[in-house]
Amino acid sequence: MTAPVIVLVRPQLGENIGKAARAMLNFGLTEMRLVAPRDGWPNPQAGPAASGADMVLEKAQVFETVADAIADCSNVYATTVRRRGLVKPVVTPEEAAREIHAAPGRSAILFGPERSGLETDDVAVARAILTVPINPEFGSLNLAQAVILVAYEWSKGQALAQPTLIEADPPAPQADLDGLVAHLEGMLEDAGYFFPPDRVPATKRTLRSVLTRPGWNAQEVRTLRGVLSALGKPRPR
Amino acid sequence: MTAPVIVLVRPQLGENIGKAARAMLNFGLTEMRLVAPRDGWPNPQAGPAASGADMVLEKAQVFETVADAIADCSNVYATTVRRRGLVKPVVTPEEAAREIHAAPGRSAILFGPERSGLETDDVAVARAILTVPINPEFGSLNLAQAVILVAYEWSKGQALAQPTLIEADPPAPQADLDGLVAHLEGMLEDAGYFFPPDRVPATKRTLRSVLTRPGWNAQEVRTLRGVLSALGKPRPR
Repeated sequence: MTAPVIVLVRPQLGENIGKAARAMLNFGLTEMRLVAPRDGWPNPQAGPAASGADMVLEKAQVFETVADAIADCSNVYATTVRRRGLVKPVVTPEEAAREIHAAPGRSAILFGPERSGLETDDVAVARAILTVPINPEFGSLNLAQAVILVAYEWSKGQALAQPTLIEADPPAPQADLDGLVAHLEGMLEDAGYFFPPDRVPATKRTLRSVLTRPGWNAQEVRTLRGVLSALGKPRPR
Repeated sequence: MTAPVIVLVRPQLGENIGKAARAMLNFGLTEMRLVAPRDGWPNPQAGPAASGADMVLEKAQVFETVADAIADCSNVYATTVRRRGLVKPVVTPEEAAREIHAAPGRSAILFGPERSGLETDDVAVARAILTVPINPEFGSLNLAQAVILVAYEWSKGQALAQPTLIEADPPAPQADLDGLVAHLEGMLEDAGYFFPPDRVPATKRTLRSVLTRPGWNAQEVRTLRGVLSALGKPRPR
């Protein structure tokens, strides 16, 4: 099953959630996840804007954090138009669709709040950045439009979907990676690595980015957890 | 000049004309033509919905008939989802975009009224039918969405819309990576990680493999060396 999860991060208007649902279902995507929707959930404005895509809204799951929302996903994209200081691959909707069809694990695509877009911390958890190549002199893509372009590209590959190659070692689920990151951060805190305080968020982002990019499988993540445990033990005299 | 003309045939709501203009300009299309807009032209609802794409609206030309609107075009598409009794080629937005880029003359794409779509007489004047391949169980594409998908596909073939790929820095030289591996191995030896002895070569190969696969750049390798140094320092009490 290649259909990606569409994750709306802190969406503001119920109307836009409904429009995104409609855009999804137009191209066969049905799994929507909401992270901390501003006006709570369910939202009475969503249904009318969905123009009949109610089943997407009814199935929508709500999470408190991005990490919770993508814990079972191993191929995560952050949709953004802004340039970031993060070293990550940048892909078009077309390239993302191709990767999603080939990915052995679940894929998720993050979309930010209507006004501000994704925060840098949200982008840091993603394997890659998804950017719609837009008119550089007039970039004004709304949430539902971004969703529809991504869903449209995915559906094009679906029509001629080929059997997914069974890869021996798919990337570990995001939750495994989170465990590794937390383990390392804990040790580094004890070691006094995070200094000065105002650099800590950027330092943590950098670390997460460095550890996300490899796409390690579950066995590799376990190996690295073992390495950290060994380094964290009291040293033999 | 390959940019197609977007022709809205008997559009109903000014708001939708504005949204279509925004969708066009997002992907570099600027020439809109209106055939007998229901509420006349200009329409005060169009501007606000265009979100800044005013120049498309200001340049928009109004015609009484479809024939007048496409008189200077030699490659005309009728956008429709319904099957017709007409014998014409049916193309996807992608195929249409390819043809438009190759066409020697001007191209135009007709979109029908919001509620009813193009009449059979409107479709008859087109060379081909353009159909967006949509979820057969939920076809609910509005005017601006249809326009944006067509504009997006056209822009993919356009130089201005080529995404500027942020190339990740090239992987660090092998010597840098060797330094990282040696650093970690040294610490793990001190920690008593390498045991039993007969498994040591395989364990080292695994570690090297895990650290080689990411293709980290020189900066990332430096970051990780710093992490190891922090973990290797005597712990603060």
